[in-house]
Amino acid sequence: MPSYKADLRDARFILHEVFEAPALWASLPTLAERIDADTANAILEEAAKVTGDLLAPLNRSGDEEGAKWIDGQVQTPAGFREAYATYAEGGWVGLSGNPEFGGMGMPKMLAVAFEEMLYAANSSFALYSALSSGACLAIDAHASEELKRRYLPPLYEGRWAGSMCLTEAHAGTDLGIIRTRAEPQADGSYRITGSKIFITGGEQDLTENIIHLVLAKLPDAPAGPRGISLFLVPKVLVGDDGSLGAANAVSCGSIEHKMGIKASSTCVMNFDGARGYLVGELNKGLAAMFTMMNYERLSIGIQGIGCAEASYQAARDYARERLQSRAATGAVAPERVADPIIVHADVRRMLLTMKTLTEAGRAFACYVGQQLDLAKYAEDPAQRERAEALVALLTPVAKAFFTDTGFESCVHGQQVFGGHGYIREWGQEQLVRDVRIAQIYEGTNGIQALDLLGRKVVGNGGAALRLFAEEIRTFAAAHETPHNAALLDAVERLEQLSGWLLEQAKGDLNAIGAASVEYLHLFGYTAYAYMWVRMVAAANRAYSDDAFYAGKRASAAFYFERLLPRVQGLEGSIRAGSASLYSLDAEQF
Amino acid sequence: MPSYKADLRDARFILHEVFEAPALWASLPTLAERIDADTANAILEEAAKVTGDLLAPLNRSGDEEGAKWIDGQVQTPAGFREAYATYAEGGWVGLSGNPEFGGMGMPKMLAVAFEEMLYAANSSFALYSALSSGACLAIDAHASEELKRRYLPPLYEGRWAGSMCLTEAHAGTDLGIIRTRAEPQADGSYRITGSKIFITGGEQDLTENIIHLVLAKLPDAPAGPRGISLFLVPKVLVGDDGSLGAANAVSCGSIEHKMGIKASSTCVMNFDGARGYLVGELNKGLAAMFTMMNYERLSIGIQGIGCAEASYQAARDYARERLQSRAATGAVAPERVADPIIVHADVRRMLLTMKTLTEAGRAFACYVGQQLDLAKYAEDPAQRERAEALVALLTPVAKAFFTDTGFESCVHGQQVFGGHGYIREWGQEQLVRDVRIAQIYEGTNGIQALDLLGRKVVGNGGAALRLFAEEIRTFAAAHETPHNAALLDAVERLEQLSGWLLEQAKGDLNAIGAASVEYLHLFGYTAYAYMWVRMVAAANRAYSDDAFYAGKRASAAFYFERLLPRVQGLEGSIRAGSASLYSLDAEQF
Repeated sequence: MPSYKADLRDARFILHEVFEAPALWASLPTLAERIDADTANAILEEAAKVTGDLLAPLNRSGDEEGAKWIDGQVQTPAGFREAYATYAEGGWVGLSGNPEFGGMGMPKMLAVAFEEMLYAANSSFALYSALSSGACLAIDAHASEELKRRYLPPLYEGRWAGSMCLTEAHAGTDLGIIRTRAEPQADGSYRITGSKIFITGGEQDLTENIIHLVLAKLPDAPAGPRGISLFLVPKVLVGDDGSLGAANAVSCGSIEHKMGIKASSTCVMNFDGARGYLVGELNKGLAAMFTMMNYERLSIGIQGIGCAEASYQAARDYARERLQSRAATGAVAPERVADPIIVHADVRRMLLTMKTLTEAGRAFACYVGQQLDLAKYAEDPAQRERAEALVALLTPVAKAFFTDTGFESCVHGQQVFGGHGYIREWGQEQLVRDVRIAQIYEGTNGIQALDLLGRKVVGNGGAALRLFAEEIRTFAAAHETPHNAALLDAVERLEQLSGWLLEQAKGDLNAIGAASVEYLHLFGYTAYAYMWVRMVAAANRAYSDDAFYAGKRASAAFYFERLLPRVQGLEGSIRAGSASLYSLDAEQF
Repeated sequence: MPSYKADLRDARFILHEVFEAPALWASLPTLAERIDADTANAILEEAAKVTGDLLAPLNRSGDEEGAKWIDGQVQTPAGFREAYATYAEGGWVGLSGNPEFGGMGMPKMLAVAFEEMLYAANSSFALYSALSSGACLAIDAHASEELKRRYLPPLYEGRWAGSMCLTEAHAGTDLGIIRTRAEPQADGSYRITGSKIFITGGEQDLTENIIHLVLAKLPDAPAGPRGISLFLVPKVLVGDDGSLGAANAVSCGSIEHKMGIKASSTCVMNFDGARGYLVGELNKGLAAMFTMMNYERLSIGIQGIGCAEASYQAARDYARERLQSRAATGAVAPERVADPIIVHADVRRMLLTMKTLTEAGRAFACYVGQQLDLAKYAEDPAQRERAEALVALLTPVAKAFFTDTGFESCVHGQQVFGGHGYIREWGQEQLVRDVRIAQIYEGTNGIQALDLLGRKVVGNGGAALRLFAEEIRTFAAAHETPHNAALLDAVERLEQLSGWLLEQAKGDLNAIGAASVEYLHLFGYTAYAYMWVRMVAAANRAYSDDAFYAGKRASAAFYFERLLPRVQGLEGSIRAGSASLYSLDAEQF
């Protein structure tokens, strides 16, 4: 019953009009040869087709059937194998991969738009691909030339897939205490032994090989996170010529039965002296893995936007058609038994909350993509450095705020359907279940918040935040919109509060943990206010009476009037400090 | 894996110490002969046993197995039949039923504590019983003596069960447009024809008969809600002597596949000229049904508290045992590989949010129960009238705020578990799925909010709210606590805002709908602030250094410092008014 079609109009608006990507690409020599406005539009259109026509129709059936574990093999739901083959053939796995090894080298600003469509259409399916793309990024950044030449091309082609093996039963957030061991062999390889849990796509029947990136410790490694190394462990051993050989000593012990993303296999992976190859330097595995983790964090953030968009489309369509009660101001469809529920204020409140959070998220994902592209392709080292600082600052915001607001949006989208929202066939409840994991995996949103406030704000004395705040002030000074004053107030509030927290953190070791989640939300609402001002500025620049631009201006007003006030409550909670969190003993809970 | 044990200490604290129920009961002649402190404690202990030992163990298996529809029959999951028989034998269905017909006549103040345990242990199971209790209430209040004599005793005994048949496929919130017809017969009965959906327990294999309360329209009835009548339609026809006769023309066409409460059957019920009996007056069926609906609304509100309590218990236990990372202030368990996560500020924030919302909800349920008891048993008509006004005002708050905060709590409880929270065997994700329906059924929380602001506040010019506000001021004047100033501020804010909305509503027909949900939340946080002041006052009265009382005081501080500030953001959104909700056409969404 549910259907999803990418909102190409908004994707183009954000890419071309808000962030003027083609002009940026033309200014960056590497990208200038690869992409222009027409190529980008053609890719977006193809992306809309593959996600809407090929993957969306498998979303409900995938949820009902689920991934199955049969004697160590994983069977994905009906249609997934064929769809993955078509998808891989289209080159989507390597969309922003390194062209030297077969990737398409497309900018992240474009890739984020595609990722949103992918998660919106079918989050379970999307994960198989997302893990491959992330693994490629880590291999490309840290592995030897030989490993790159051997592993990247089939990964970009989608013939092989990737996985990320961090978590162990006793070690999730706290990776310093992992027990998986790596023993050096005479030939320079390692024997990996240990058990990993929650491995997305650790086993599947979509690709002929799976390349696991595994965190493990050498026998003599230092204790804690500084003793962790990263290894590439293929499911099937690969010959010098790239041919597949014997099975490696890797097996899938079971898969989890989960709340959602049921078509994605979540595996217990056992490594029994499996052959592995070091990626990057010994004992610096965590840093190398962070290349993949930061990729996945933004990607999982985008899952939040994608699920919210899918839920919004369905809720909007339902609200236009479902007849129930009369508008408060009098019947708008007197010829029918009741009015469509989109006339009711509270239904509009829910839809506009979804719409304005999702569109701001879409813009912010493109903005972070722009910084990633600048960090990679800008010629000026100072520009690269600035972009890297922004990426570091904004990645935890993107991951956690996209998914927290994505979850809120999907819950609204379910609520718009009334009782039907709770029934499986309508699809809205699946989106709630599927998006829920995005607040948990790739580092819980609580961990993202600690990373933001502890490392990315307090850790550098607020320097990165100042970059962001100054950019916002500069933009506002150059672009008049009705919301500039509110935006500047919000930025001022964020900076004041950050300064206050910098002081608090000096005297109170619990200050950061006590404030972090509310702080991240306050940061997120401020960042979205910036996005809405940029969208209004772009809509004004269009000098058009197209209803699309009027809708953008009206949506911005809703965001500033109805959602941004949430920061007032958040500030109140933050300023209460940590004391009341620690006045109960563990036994008094 | 999950287990639930009722928190008897807190139940007794609220009943005896906060609301001093035994003294109240002693002052009300009808209740004085039925119950005293010892009886109440004995019932609570038995309730804890039946819910913890009998029903909680069937919760996970019930979710996995689900209710099944086989050729028109519903099969409840393994163990439900036997458990229901034991449960009914204990007299729990008729706990607060009319003693004249076999009920136990227990006060609502006590019954709400039991209902919480029931939903906490097994929400699906609870519903079969809750519908019976509600149906009894409507029959007792509105049916003829003959119907009461014939139907109430077996319902109270639990040999038969009840159902509430309102919704039709095209008519959920908007009951005025139902199509089910009732044709008068020569013998005074009616033939009921039509199809109802979303009927909880419409068919099941737990009881030998099911008594449906059905909304239908006579052929010549006025259009809209003023043409609706209420009928009692038994699944099996009942002879004059109470014996079971032929099957009535009622059948279950299918059951829904849902997000949660999977062991509860949600039925499509077809009435094909079924024999029915009028309950109450013709065309006044909606008012009669509201006796049942208001009962169910409070009951479903309590589902929110029950699920939150179950989630809290599991999250607290997990947080005490799960070892991960070190406390920010230095290791508290240096002999172990990491500290229990309850040392971390953000874990404490989640647990304390759950704890303080749940305990305030528990107190507020008891408070509403007290008003229901006063409305029923007080000898002074003025006291009854005042209590009725408070019940009318507070029922939508209880239904919606208990379940919105209950959902928030269950999401926190899942988050505390990290990745394990997403895995079915741990039980936390089931609670999220099960509690989610409580925000939707028995009138969505959006509808509750319209009822509160439109009918219960604006509708009487704020008179009912003044009663509540005056009571709070009187209490605060007589009981000094550290939070009185904050409570009085919150009440002042609520009253000011209500006055402002009364004015807005005169000029803007959309004003109520635009503000209603945020208004209900602001009301709820204010009511919970009152509950926390009452709990602190009771804890102070105890003059005890028992850690329990210290814990109450510390929890109150958390509530006032960290959660109550949310009203600031809510007020900001409310004062923005309705304009931004209506600046987009339906096509611009």
